[in-house]
Amino acid sequence: MHVALISVGDEILAGDTVNTNATWLGQRLSERGVDVERVTVVPDVISEIASVVNEYHATYDAVIITGGLGPTHDDLTMEGVAAALGREVAQSEEALAWLTEEGGYTRGDLTKGTADLPRGARPLHNDVGVAPGAVVQGIYVLPGVPSEMKAMFEDVVEQFEGEPRYVDRVYTSEPESALVPRLEALQERFDVSVGSYPGDGVRLKITGTDEQTVEAAAEWLRERVELDE
Amino acid sequence: MHVALISVGDEILAGDTVNTNATWLGQRLSERGVDVERVTVVPDVISEIASVVNEYHATYDAVIITGGLGPTHDDLTMEGVAAALGREVAQSEEALAWLTEEGGYTRGDLTKGTADLPRGARPLHNDVGVAPGAVVQGIYVLPGVPSEMKAMFEDVVEQFEGEPRYVDRVYTSEPESALVPRLEALQERFDVSVGSYPGDGVRLKITGTDEQTVEAAAEWLRERVELDE
Repeated sequence: MHVALISVGDEILAGDTVNTNATWLGQRLSERGVDVERVTVVPDVISEIASVVNEYHATYDAVIITGGLGPTHDDLTMEGVAAALGREVAQSEEALAWLTEEGGYTRGDLTKGTADLPRGARPLHNDVGVAPGAVVQGIYVLPGVPSEMKAMFEDVVEQFEGEPRYVDRVYTSEPESALVPRLEALQERFDVSVGSYPGDGVRLKITGTDEQTVEAAAEWLRERVELDE
Repeated sequence: MHVALISVGDEILAGDTVNTNATWLGQRLSERGVDVERVTVVPDVISEIASVVNEYHATYDAVIITGGLGPTHDDLTMEGVAAALGREVAQSEEALAWLTEEGGYTRGDLTKGTADLPRGARPLHNDVGVAPGAVVQGIYVLPGVPSEMKAMFEDVVEQFEGEPRYVDRVYTSEPESALVPRLEALQERFDVSVGSYPGDGVRLKITGTDEQTVEAAAEWLRERVELDE
């Protein structure tokens, strides 16, 4: 299963906010064997949102888009998703009913547009905040506030399921360039993929579909590099 | 000036690494009045890198791409950028001369491919690490290790210059929905843009090209919302 993440918000582009939502979703999806193949941040502009949603909707099995939900002028994600699908936004009676019956709001409390979703979308209820999310044609629209996003994602997490994968990590104090021949030998010997991430030492991440193979590959490598404890 | 950032790396997509490079570059460029209009993370795959570089090269004034430099099998950024431009990678004599004369390496120290850049690119020297960066046709190729990326970016920062912009921020404890009419009035009254970021309270960011207008708008708002100190 191949997934793309889209984060909406000028504040992320300007570096005011770190895109921890994408990090969290990447971890949760990875754990489930699902590959995130693209993460893109777009500005609060309907046409930009629509253009990227349209492209990724055509390319990936599912698209998760976070941020830009809510009542203010810069909350444009629902309009962007609707435009990508050639639909209008329309007030969701189901979302409105949930907000008034379960959410504890009166219709008068709710700002105009609060329950507007792309026409035909299924609402996702927001147990932590106000703005509902939505699912439509494999596009999952979630809030940008991390606590709201996480709670809403957990309600749909079972839709995301890939091949089981196993990961082991080796940390070495050697320079990356010195490791090249050993990493090549490792990949010839074992059916695993290896990521090499330099920083303060080098982090090596070994991933594969067979648990014993991953363990054996990590063990083989640990015996051959200077370990960084 | 409109800029796109591309970050290369499976480790970012999988949530193993937070994309703080994009945050830092967004801040530095914003300070200089340059708009970052897209941030995209792509996997360690030449064709994926090439496809996004090609698209953004055609769309934005400059593209900054970070990560995937170095000697290991998953360091594919130079190949991806070269492919996007229909070029090959070739050993840069200038980069090699710098590494041996200034960098303190012998040719024997350097792993094969260390000084390979897209043919015709200008090398950017790495004062903190080994792998050189490159500039070619408005595409800036920088390392992924944050200390190396930052040092190399500061060497080219003067290429990035936009309209001066002024920013002021107002923090309120009111819910975002309650603010809608005042934010609309603010934008009718002052030539500024306003970002509204809910979380624990709401952060309001006022941006404009005239310093006094931004200050006056922030003052007007401060007198009309419950401030969150």
